[in-house]
Amino acid sequence: MAARNIKMIIQYVGTRYHGWQVQENAISIQQLLEEKLSLILDERIRVIGAGRTDTGVHALAQVANFRTKNVLNIKKIFKGVNSLLPSDIAVLSMRDTDAQFNARKDASRKEYCYQIWNAEIISPFLAPFAKHAPYRLDREAMKDAAGFFHGRHDFTSFCSSRSAVKDKVRNVYFSSCEVAGNMIRYRIVANGFLQHMVRTIVGTLINVGKTRIQKNDIVDILKARDRRQAGFAAPAKGLFLVRVDYERRG
Amino acid sequence: MAARNIKMIIQYVGTRYHGWQVQENAISIQQLLEEKLSLILDERIRVIGAGRTDTGVHALAQVANFRTKNVLNIKKIFKGVNSLLPSDIAVLSMRDTDAQFNARKDASRKEYCYQIWNAEIISPFLAPFAKHAPYRLDREAMKDAAGFFHGRHDFTSFCSSRSAVKDKVRNVYFSSCEVAGNMIRYRIVANGFLQHMVRTIVGTLINVGKTRIQKNDIVDILKARDRRQAGFAAPAKGLFLVRVDYERRG
Repeated sequence: MAARNIKMIIQYVGTRYHGWQVQENAISIQQLLEEKLSLILDERIRVIGAGRTDTGVHALAQVANFRTKNVLNIKKIFKGVNSLLPSDIAVLSMRDTDAQFNARKDASRKEYCYQIWNAEIISPFLAPFAKHAPYRLDREAMKDAAGFFHGRHDFTSFCSSRSAVKDKVRNVYFSSCEVAGNMIRYRIVANGFLQHMVRTIVGTLINVGKTRIQKNDIVDILKARDRRQAGFAAPAKGLFLVRVDYERRG
Repeated sequence: MAARNIKMIIQYVGTRYHGWQVQENAISIQQLLEEKLSLILDERIRVIGAGRTDTGVHALAQVANFRTKNVLNIKKIFKGVNSLLPSDIAVLSMRDTDAQFNARKDASRKEYCYQIWNAEIISPFLAPFAKHAPYRLDREAMKDAAGFFHGRHDFTSFCSSRSAVKDKVRNVYFSSCEVAGNMIRYRIVANGFLQHMVRTIVGTLINVGKTRIQKNDIVDILKARDRRQAGFAAPAKGLFLVRVDYERRG
């Protein structure tokens, strides 16, 4: 019998984890999911996730898939894995899908959101989920600057220098700063993301907000293809993987 | 010179703490505040809080006061204490007040809120802040039952049997279950609360929702003045101290 291919949507608070991907001597979301699913399905399960979120990054709707020969009812797998997972990770939905579906390779667009709380005091309930910026920010300049990331660009300047990826050109379909009271939310949709890309864009936008650089400088920083030209990588805790889109499969 | 009396409003995520009140071998919110304030003001500070929240209970607006002989500018004390506190505790405001003001004794009304998430799956972002009830609850019966706590009652049946308090009569000014989608929020305003009172009321309301008892049974449980007649104490993580009111001072 052919193996089943199961697609799932996962939500997690990233605070306690060393990111999505399995690594030595650190607990990752992928590792925990593989452990619990392997236990339920009585075989070694490998989970493929759409976005390799960094240490401390959260997900509202990460997408992943795994293959299994076990014919166990999907509802039982779903209930079983949720009962075994710690309370900061939840599988929101699970279903059998197309045998060819690959959550990572087939993802056509991903959306990330970054929260900046721009006020003197941050609520303890919000602190794990936003960068606290207790200083004046020129929000209008940040809104304007966000627009410069829209389109097809080489994002070398906004990618960790440790990244081994060769092609650093990405298509950005949406890039916008929205302001609601003291909250500044940066949203970006692209066909792919490089390591630390969103956090470095946000760090650079904060430099615009502080008037350390001008909004038009974004164009030159992109052109430079030099990580040192962009701003600091904003802390992981403000970043959320919001959505993953698939055009054909899944 | 007379000592100053300073009033403050405090917000905290209770998850990591053994409640408000100082105790041996456990970290409390009061203890942390006293430590940080003593450091800034260079004298032994004692903080008086309005509500002695239990281990794991949260506060949106706890009220407290402390006396000091130090003449340091209030803005400096405010900034100093917030910079020293961990990110799950914040002082929202601070001001010099009436010398006689006592945050605990002068409180005329307090409001608590309890969150119950009534759906199969709970979001990891909500899990630390609500009781997860993944079973059918008769919400209309719970709404009706909540009304029976309104008025002046002896709450012996809804108070921890370990409590040393003698007078267990309290005036409840507001007691209501509000439903919004899958969220059931119980709100109660009273002139005072006994140990585990809100959590035991909520545990009893959940028994009504499960149709283990009838809404009219609340009347008999109150009359019985016997802790064994009421339901379990719902978990602390769903409970929030929302507001403290003062009629005269403060």
